[in-house]
Amino acid sequence: MRTITIKPKAITHNLNQVKKLAPQSKVLAMVKSNAYGHGVAAVLPALTQADGIGVATFTEALEARQLGWNKTIGLVEGAFTADEWQQAIEQDVSCVIHHVPQLTWALDNVPPADSATRVVWLKYNTGMNRLGFNAEGVINAARQLKETGYQLILTTHFANADDHDHPLNAMQIQRFTDVLAILQSTISPTIKGSLCNSAGIVNFSEHHYDWVRPGIILYGSSPVIDKTAQELDLQSAMDFSAQIIALQTVSANDGIGYGSRWIAQQDTKTALVSVGYGDGYPRVVNDDAYVSVIDDTSNHSYPCAVIGRVAMDMIVIDVSKVPAEVPLLNSKVILWGSAPHVDEVAAHAGTISYELLCRVTMRPKRLQA
Amino acid sequence: MRTITIKPKAITHNLNQVKKLAPQSKVLAMVKSNAYGHGVAAVLPALTQADGIGVATFTEALEARQLGWNKTIGLVEGAFTADEWQQAIEQDVSCVIHHVPQLTWALDNVPPADSATRVVWLKYNTGMNRLGFNAEGVINAARQLKETGYQLILTTHFANADDHDHPLNAMQIQRFTDVLAILQSTISPTIKGSLCNSAGIVNFSEHHYDWVRPGIILYGSSPVIDKTAQELDLQSAMDFSAQIIALQTVSANDGIGYGSRWIAQQDTKTALVSVGYGDGYPRVVNDDAYVSVIDDTSNHSYPCAVIGRVAMDMIVIDVSKVPAEVPLLNSKVILWGSAPHVDEVAAHAGTISYELLCRVTMRPKRLQA
Repeated sequence: MRTITIKPKAITHNLNQVKKLAPQSKVLAMVKSNAYGHGVAAVLPALTQADGIGVATFTEALEARQLGWNKTIGLVEGAFTADEWQQAIEQDVSCVIHHVPQLTWALDNVPPADSATRVVWLKYNTGMNRLGFNAEGVINAARQLKETGYQLILTTHFANADDHDHPLNAMQIQRFTDVLAILQSTISPTIKGSLCNSAGIVNFSEHHYDWVRPGIILYGSSPVIDKTAQELDLQSAMDFSAQIIALQTVSANDGIGYGSRWIAQQDTKTALVSVGYGDGYPRVVNDDAYVSVIDDTSNHSYPCAVIGRVAMDMIVIDVSKVPAEVPLLNSKVILWGSAPHVDEVAAHAGTISYELLCRVTMRPKRLQA
Repeated sequence: MRTITIKPKAITHNLNQVKKLAPQSKVLAMVKSNAYGHGVAAVLPALTQADGIGVATFTEALEARQLGWNKTIGLVEGAFTADEWQQAIEQDVSCVIHHVPQLTWALDNVPPADSATRVVWLKYNTGMNRLGFNAEGVINAARQLKETGYQLILTTHFANADDHDHPLNAMQIQRFTDVLAILQSTISPTIKGSLCNSAGIVNFSEHHYDWVRPGIILYGSSPVIDKTAQELDLQSAMDFSAQIIALQTVSANDGIGYGSRWIAQQDTKTALVSVGYGDGYPRVVNDDAYVSVIDDTSNHSYPCAVIGRVAMDMIVIDVSKVPAEVPLLNSKVILWGSAPHVDEVAAHAGTISYELLCRVTMRPKRLQA
């Protein structure tokens, strides 16, 4: 049975790792995109010690409120329309303001003094070049918002924080530090700052400011290029498994699967695993891709190469190195979890774990550990 | 607003194309993996003229029954356990039998004479090397099943039918034809055959046999390498759209997005589209990837390149070639649909449309046209 098992305790552990790394900062835990595919309902109870959560759409904010989340919600792209700004006020959601239309809605429709929407995350584009005001624009916006009674958090987003030595990091940090100093000295010393995503939390501990915004690190993947999840003492929050439903022995020179992409060099014992890209396993993986076959009786795990093209509903694996006494039919197979780690699978698929986690489909059965 | 719009009329049109291509055959319409991501509830009403539907898991079969589908359901990997075989009987599901354990369950637990489970799809491995008996095994299984009172459909699956001239096709056809002739002459002339998936339907019209099993063709993508969906007169069944939520002008030499992967050669007008891999747009696309920006007033569409790394919630596009008078903020953007066709996006992402369609997430709003 295709199964996704979510481990809330791993998420709580990872949140505690964030708190150890950034002990002076409040934590906005990112749960956008259905909590990186983990399911927001499963994840929120593991985040009770976070100071707030971050979402990408108003629908996601509403879902979190409906699930009973009553602390801060940050809408990280802000309201998309004036109407959505009004809805944000009604749901006590704190919004990013990254361009002039959003500024106008905020100035025209001021929430009550005790509303969480009075807290605005003002976005400064320091080099990501997606969202945000330039330095002049952000200073002007801050002045108007502060005069209207808003509390401000200056925020920006790193483009290359995963790579500690990338030259843009120092430039982004400098720009952010400079503008925050200007805002605090010329507008209000109460203006706060938020700079770091997961990678920034790990790589730039001297620049954590008032709020950090962990995302992938909460789910147990490494956010940086030079340290593994294990080295960061993170725990995987998702196990993805399936089972062997058939065995074959293919003859030397026979091809396997679509495109006959994998050709047997010798007679090879193979197993069919009932899982595929229709479940969220990536269709294109390189020859290093493997899964772990679990021997139920000993709990020993055997790495087995994925051979042939991944199909919608099936993959074929090479089980020729599994000892003959291990019963294979119906055995559990780990696609990702403890081993292989989802970060490894992502590397085999030419992408990052974030994408694999988000794009798991609704077909696998969902469990919680 | 991220939106997936499903077009049931397109699916009915594509089904009719299949019927024109294979007028003598019954049609088992594949709706596995949530109808290739389209949503089985949206798709079933468009398939009333199909003779049956094909699913990959018993859960999918049950869902279709619960939605009121009362014709044939084919379980294409068969039952996974003896218990599931019993459940198949209870739900009148016709199963593939591809290995000895399934054969044993069928011989040990024979459904009533009027049960649809009395129809068995007996799988012969002709060269795909995933599932199925060899020639000797399939003849033995057929004899035992026939003696026990089952009706049989011999079935196999092409590995390379998308490529008409691939040498394995002729070999698979020959093996299938030979064994079907043996079964019909030595066991029963009533034994039927099913060989062709979408690609086989297009490429091997002389070998359609009793049942064809269209999948991707129903959803409007081309199943073959040498003809486009348009050339096959297919209609896309899914439109994937989002909207522009911000505009920027980046300066020459500025990088955009994660990894600063795209560097502006000159000052460039860009737009931020609120969609990303968290919605199912592929994270890794090449420099040919584009979207269409729709001018609401004229309904004219402008192709705009995707620039910089696709993120979880956002992509950046180059809007510098859109005429200045076209209002961009809040404009609708087509990720795939009429143009670009999902087959094009798949090519830009190094995969096939099947994967993109299946792996769309639940975040986009779902509509029906």
